Parts: sequence; structure tokens; C-alpha cells
Amino acid sequence: MRVRILVSFKDSVLDPQGQTVKNALHTMGYAAVKDVRQGKVFEIELEGIARKEAEALIPEISRKVLANPIIEKFDWQLLK
Amino acid sequence: MRVRILVSFKDSVLDPQGQTVKNALHTMGYAAVKDVRQGKVFEIELEGIARKEAEALIPEISRKVLANPIIEKFDWQLLK
Repeated sequence: MRVRILVSFKDSVLDPQGQTVKNALHTMGYAAVKDVRQGKVFEIELEGIARKEAEALIPEISRKVLANPIIEKFDWQLLK
Repeated sequence: MRVRILVSFKDSVLDPQGQTVKNALHTMGYAAVKDVRQGKVFEIELEGIARKEAEALIPEISRKVLANPIIEKFDWQLLK
């Protein structure tokens, strides 16, 4: 089972990396870019567990290891 | 227009960050985790351009700024 987990800063948290990318794009003339937020993506391959278990495991792993729940939010989807 | 761009190492490229996360999860007892690949996600807000232009702009920005095409691949989708 393949899972994609997206981790990004909460909207209320400043994102200096995204800001830097936005500034770089503006300097290069890409004026249509109004905002950039940068985050992390994890693609995880799970084996030997049922879908129900995976649906409990993924949020647990995300909260404990992949994201810092104080400043980050996460979102996930099964890929197949 | 909101766009999500996923940037990750090509499958042939080693991913030490993903490996480290996998090892951490195994140490914590999550044996179902067979593989972890880590990448970056960018959410970009575009304004004042048509969808057709955006569809040309996004791969251009991805190749020039967001990803290193030698070792990374990217994938994108319009969010709305």
C-alpha cells in the first residue's frame, strides 16, 4: 500500500523558504506568482497491514514523527 | 489559481532523508513501513493569467527553480 503524506506549516506560521522562492521568482520576472508555501512530502510504502490499520497508523506516524503538530499540519491520501 | 507541485528525487537517486525517517520508524516499532521517500511540496498562488498560460508556466518554473532536473522529478496539479 502506497501512501502520500503532505506536511506544511499552518497558515498562521511564517514560511521563510516559501517567501524566498517567491522573491526569486519575482526577480526572474514571474509576476503572476502571488504566494508560495513550501512543505514536505513523504511517500511511504506499507506492507502486511490492512487498510483499516493503515488508516489509523498514518495519522499516528504523521503526528509523532513526520510533522510538528504545534506549527505544522498534515494531509494524506492512499495512492493505491 | 492554486497549484500544487511535488518535487522528489528520481527513483535511481539515493534519498538519505527518507532512509533516516524509515530507520526512525523501525526503531519505534512500525515494522509495516517498507520504504520512505521524502520530497518537497510547493503550493503556489497564481493571479492574472489564464489556465493555458499557467499550464506552460508551471513546468518552466519547476525546471528552472523548484527542482534540479538532473536528480529530481516533479509532478503538478491544479487545485482550483
